Amino acid sequence: MDFKNELERKINVVNDELHKYLEVRYPEIIFQAMGYSVFAGGKRLRPVLMLASCEAEGGREEDVLPFACGLEMIHTYSLIHDDLPEMDNDDFRRGKPTCHKKFDQGVAVLAGDGLLTYAFEVMLKKACTDFDSKYVRAAENTARLSGSDGMLVGQVVDVVSEGKVIDADTLAYIHKNKTGGLIKAALMNGAIVAGADDRRIAQYELMGEKLGLAFQIMDDILDVTSTEETLGKPVFSDEKNHKVTYVSMYGLEKAKEEYLKLCREVNEIAGKLGGEGGFLQTYCESLVNRIN
Amino acid sequence: MDFKNELERKINVVNDELHKYLEVRYPEIIFQAMGYSVFAGGKRLRPVLMLASCEAEGGREEDVLPFACGLEMIHTYSLIHDDLPEMDNDDFRRGKPTCHKKFDQGVAVLAGDGLLTYAFEVMLKKACTDFDSKYVRAAENTARLSGSDGMLVGQVVDVVSEGKVIDADTLAYIHKNKTGGLIKAALMNGAIVAGADDRRIAQYELMGEKLGLAFQIMDDILDVTSTEETLGKPVFSDEKNHKVTYVSMYGLEKAKEEYLKLCREVNEIAGKLGGEGGFLQTYCESLVNRIN
Repeated sequence: MDFKNELERKINVVNDELHKYLEVRYPEIIFQAMGYSVFAGGKRLRPVLMLASCEAEGGREEDVLPFACGLEMIHTYSLIHDDLPEMDNDDFRRGKPTCHKKFDQGVAVLAGDGLLTYAFEVMLKKACTDFDSKYVRAAENTARLSGSDGMLVGQVVDVVSEGKVIDADTLAYIHKNKTGGLIKAALMNGAIVAGADDRRIAQYELMGEKLGLAFQIMDDILDVTSTEETLGKPVFSDEKNHKVTYVSMYGLEKAKEEYLKLCREVNEIAGKLGGEGGFLQTYCESLVNRIN
Repeated sequence: MDFKNELERKINVVNDELHKYLEVRYPEIIFQAMGYSVFAGGKRLRPVLMLASCEAEGGREEDVLPFACGLEMIHTYSLIHDDLPEMDNDDFRRGKPTCHKKFDQGVAVLAGDGLLTYAFEVMLKKACTDFDSKYVRAAENTARLSGSDGMLVGQVVDVVSEGKVIDADTLAYIHKNKTGGLIKAALMNGAIVAGADDRRIAQYELMGEKLGLAFQIMDDILDVTSTEETLGKPVFSDEKNHKVTYVSMYGLEKAKEEYLKLCREVNEIAGKLGGEGGFLQTYCESLVNRIN
């Protein structure tokens, strides 16, 4: 397997499918705004993870694509709403104007709402056309982990904690849910769609929890060690927003240690599930190299 | 059948279920904000219509409740986001402070997002527990009619048309989708969950289209003929917002005529589907009396 080619192929498959879903039609402005944010240069981390876990469990790529694209739409809606003036008030994301700066605030609210709703349209269309309980379970898992048992509640605690002193449990809750929710959904749904048994699905869940936490710690680290040019967004934003992070709570060295420990654990689980040197493990390794 | 008692019973059943779903738990503020808007005094029009069409088709109330509550959550999310300063900028709704005035703007965005996501959690949980294609179809129908083939696109065209001269087709598109989407979903989903055949589901769709349009015209009429006390919201808001309405395009008399014609048609279909003098027809008649 040529890893780089395979990664590029997976990203292209996801992008092609997203382009089909988001083809501009009447009313043009909303599809333009949704497409603008979806195609503003994401790494397709979540869809690639989902394709990888599906592949590792012997599932078909075409079956998992609607769920991979749906999850990317949900990820993008959360970025659009997070960037709004009443939330993080960010003018740039990935080096480009945020949705509400490119369009306007009302359109940005609707583009987020539209992506969230459309994600369920896309997933449920698959479940209606190819009626199988595994698709319904994947859609339910997506709703739960982007909602009341994942991203949404994590984001709520993050927003209300800003500028406040929070304890380690609260910080862990934010990390586990805000970033962890969708990463868990990605890895679990690939396995669910492939028809894996509950024991294996639970392994993907555990892997997602560790990987999600690793990403959050990495974000916290990069915010204080990187540059605006490299990141494509302002650095020291956490400090500016008086935000407690893994780095501010435990220090940079301890954060790096914890990050590397989590990466090793993820690597081990990925090797067991998808095979040593398989795409899943290699992909996770490539992610580690970002700050190492 | 004592209509008033039965209507009250249906509303209570829906409210009890909504209270269970929205029980306040950690993180409290989001469940408080979602509950605040859901329980700010709605008439439960959509859930009652769904219960009525399910009953007319011989379905079980307990099976349709998750879809009725889900749809009410989606309706409420749309109100919360519509009221935001970047949209309609309304401080009051049903005589009470809007979500972003009672809480704050960031929480209001998240409460809307939360209700939209939670609606799918609730519906898909039912589809996972009681695995049947009709539940998947009802969830898919909800996504479609609140999204790219209904409420969302109608709202988009409404927002971008504000202050502009629009033609009759555009006005019809807004009415059909913005209000019509969820009314159609309500009537169709009741029939879908009851296991009705496609021919009958199409009749509920037609009825929903007419009823949705009737409601929109009624809203336009009440905005120029009612008082703030009666409506629980400011009157002449359409004129103030330079909004083209059915009344401003066709005149008050023609609007009233069209409204009554639609009500007669709805009444006729309701009588055929749910029986003359049945709950469905009587409920629709009770709605007509609001401006007659």
